[in-house]
Amino acid sequence: MKFKNPPVNSLSLEFLTEFVISLEKLENDKTFRGVILTSDRPGVFSAGLDLREMCGRNPAHCAEYWKAVQELWLRLYLSNLVVIAAVNGSSPAGGCLIALTCDYRVLADNPKYLMGLNETLLGIVAPFWFKDTLVNTIGHRAAERALQLGLLFPPAEALQVGMVDKVVPEDQVQSTALSVMAQWLAIPDHARQLTKNMMRKATVDRLVKERDSDIKNFVSFISRDSIQKYLQMYLEKLKQKKG
Amino acid sequence: MKFKNPPVNSLSLEFLTEFVISLEKLENDKTFRGVILTSDRPGVFSAGLDLREMCGRNPAHCAEYWKAVQELWLRLYLSNLVVIAAVNGSSPAGGCLIALTCDYRVLADNPKYLMGLNETLLGIVAPFWFKDTLVNTIGHRAAERALQLGLLFPPAEALQVGMVDKVVPEDQVQSTALSVMAQWLAIPDHARQLTKNMMRKATVDRLVKERDSDIKNFVSFISRDSIQKYLQMYLEKLKQKKG
Amino acid sequence: MKFKNPPVNSLSLEFLTEFVISLEKLENDKTFRGVILTSDRPGVFSAGLDLREMCGRNPAHCAEYWKAVQELWLRLYLSNLVVIAAVNGSSPAGGCLIALTCDYRVLADNPKYLMGLNETLLGIVAPFWFKDTLVNTIGHRAAERALQLGLLFPPAEALQVGMVDKVVPEDQVQSTALSVMAQWLAIPDHARQLTKNMMRKATVDRLVKERDSDIKNFVSFISRDSIQKYLQMYLEKLKQKKG
Repeated sequence: MKFKNPPVNSLSLEFLTEFVISLEKLENDKTFRGVILTSDRPGVFSAGLDLREMCGRNPAHCAEYWKAVQELWLRLYLSNLVVIAAVNGSSPAGGCLIALTCDYRVLADNPKYLMGLNETLLGIVAPFWFKDTLVNTIGHRAAERALQLGLLFPPAEALQVGMVDKVVPEDQVQSTALSVMAQWLAIPDHARQLTKNMMRKATVDRLVKERDSDIKNFVSFISRDSIQKYLQMYLEKLKQKKG
Repeated sequence: MKFKNPPVNSLSLEFLTEFVISLEKLENDKTFRGVILTSDRPGVFSAGLDLREMCGRNPAHCAEYWKAVQELWLRLYLSNLVVIAAVNGSSPAGGCLIALTCDYRVLADNPKYLMGLNETLLGIVAPFWFKDTLVNTIGHRAAERALQLGLLFPPAEALQVGMVDKVVPEDQVQSTALSVMAQWLAIPDHARQLTKNMMRKATVDRLVKERDSDIKNFVSFISRDSIQKYLQMYLEKLKQKKG
Repeated sequence: MKFKNPPVNSLSLEFLTEFVISLEKLENDKTFRGVILTSDRPGVFSAGLDLREMCGRNPAHCAEYWKAVQELWLRLYLSNLVVIAAVNGSSPAGGCLIALTCDYRVLADNPKYLMGLNETLLGIVAPFWFKDTLVNTIGHRAAERALQLGLLFPPAEALQVGMVDKVVPEDQVQSTALSVMAQWLAIPDHARQLTKNMMRKATVDRLVKERDSDIKNFVSFISRDSIQKYLQMYLEKLKQKKG
């Protein structure tokens, strides 16, 4: 499955909705047993959440948006499919989250391809289930440091901290992802799926239980004047860069 | 304590029962403060659960068997003794579990001596307390990958992932285990035992609380036609190999 | 902030009380955003809990003392300030705990500067919140081994196990701590504080909930004849060394 939402594969509401529908189709189609997530546009895997969905929008829209972000995470993190990330570009914030939900992560060895949950750099806070996903992947201490400092890791460091499983030359990302997929598909589906569920269900249940309050928290946080001003400034800076 | 259940130290019901009785005697005899677990037959530490106890047996037998497996884990994981594994052979599945319950693991440096919870390779699923024991030892992410893929690690990889604490030449396994034992016995028993209990009690309590439902789950899973057929095929293949 | 409680910066009741008051002042003074903890007397960061506060004292004194130890941990572990440890000397037991509560640990590269929770060596047991802090820092398995054996790590090993974040030559400890501080202060305070809270609150809540029973446990444990005798012997040995 190739992300295609120019210019930087931002997770817009529309993109999230289509993503979830596509995943659902694959899950229901018994001929599919695995999926590789990658970007149609090498250089950016996904730039993460779309700030335009939270900036200057009414609370109802923000709530709908956040619910869609939750939905994608819930479906990816417990997907019955083997999900492999072929990370062929930068993956900050929500882009990193998508990679972290996968069963295996292959990253292109390009020092420009940074990866991490860098929310604090924007003055915002990763929600607890982003945090839980990161702790499950790199452990408590590394997550504590990475999240507080909003660290974006270049490939060698991402590998060392355990944020990705393999770093390969850029032109071998897809082939590596395919051979890893073959290894995972060699395992009987049923046993693999039950095992995955056993590993991840407790983490997913936490969000399921607190889903509404998590939406309320997000909407109330994002609606603050200080945060809105910060996001506006940030978006304008981005526009100027492009201009 | 040397495992002696030819040909591969399978954890038969009889073997488990004797194992627990021996452990109990050692625990109650104040002259014993530690025990080294090893195999009487270098080459196989323990092949793990005995499939013959689950294949073609009635539910009552399966339930009795599973209770005995639980009992061994409960006693080993919180044993007041210093328990050290001198792993002088392969230790798949239940064999690996026994090693994981120990306070320290020494593994012989022989690339044939594979170690891991490889249940998914047989189409079955490690129970949650096998999983908890592994997560406590190698962390969440490494456990997630190892359990889903049913990975069997050769010594160098077992050391790297943290599944064992030391890899030494085959003829030094026992002497290394003895010198490690001396280090552990230098600690006042009472303080060490309370500390061990503090580290492991929460994990043990989970099984104690769900012990009956865990037995029911096992019996219902193992009684499925598909699983029984799979086990039968597997056992016949093993017989042919020997023949 | 420089620890100054000759000869070895023991955490006496008076020292703890002043420490908490100083911290509180810094937290309330908006001109302070971070603090570096170090020792006024290179060679000993802090020798940890003051055994004289628990040896031959009445239960009420022991309870008051333990409450002060808890209070320091509660305030340090969730401090809104960036707290960095510039560890310029040995840090056993409670000294190690203080370093573990920090956001980042720099250790002087001197093989005499040992670091660890070595309670079992004295026949006592680290309380569960010492254990939780260590598990959060170095993971479950490493903590299990370190706590049971009362391991004191020299700098290279402390770095490898993750007990400190950086080891530098002795004369660069302060300058390194300062440049690390600059990196942490570059993050917007509000986002960093909320993230820190999200990472650590569950651990802190456990003690808050069980604070009284933890005090009772401590007082009852420390009042045992066997423990009192042990502490007396130990203190006399220390005195003779000095003499």
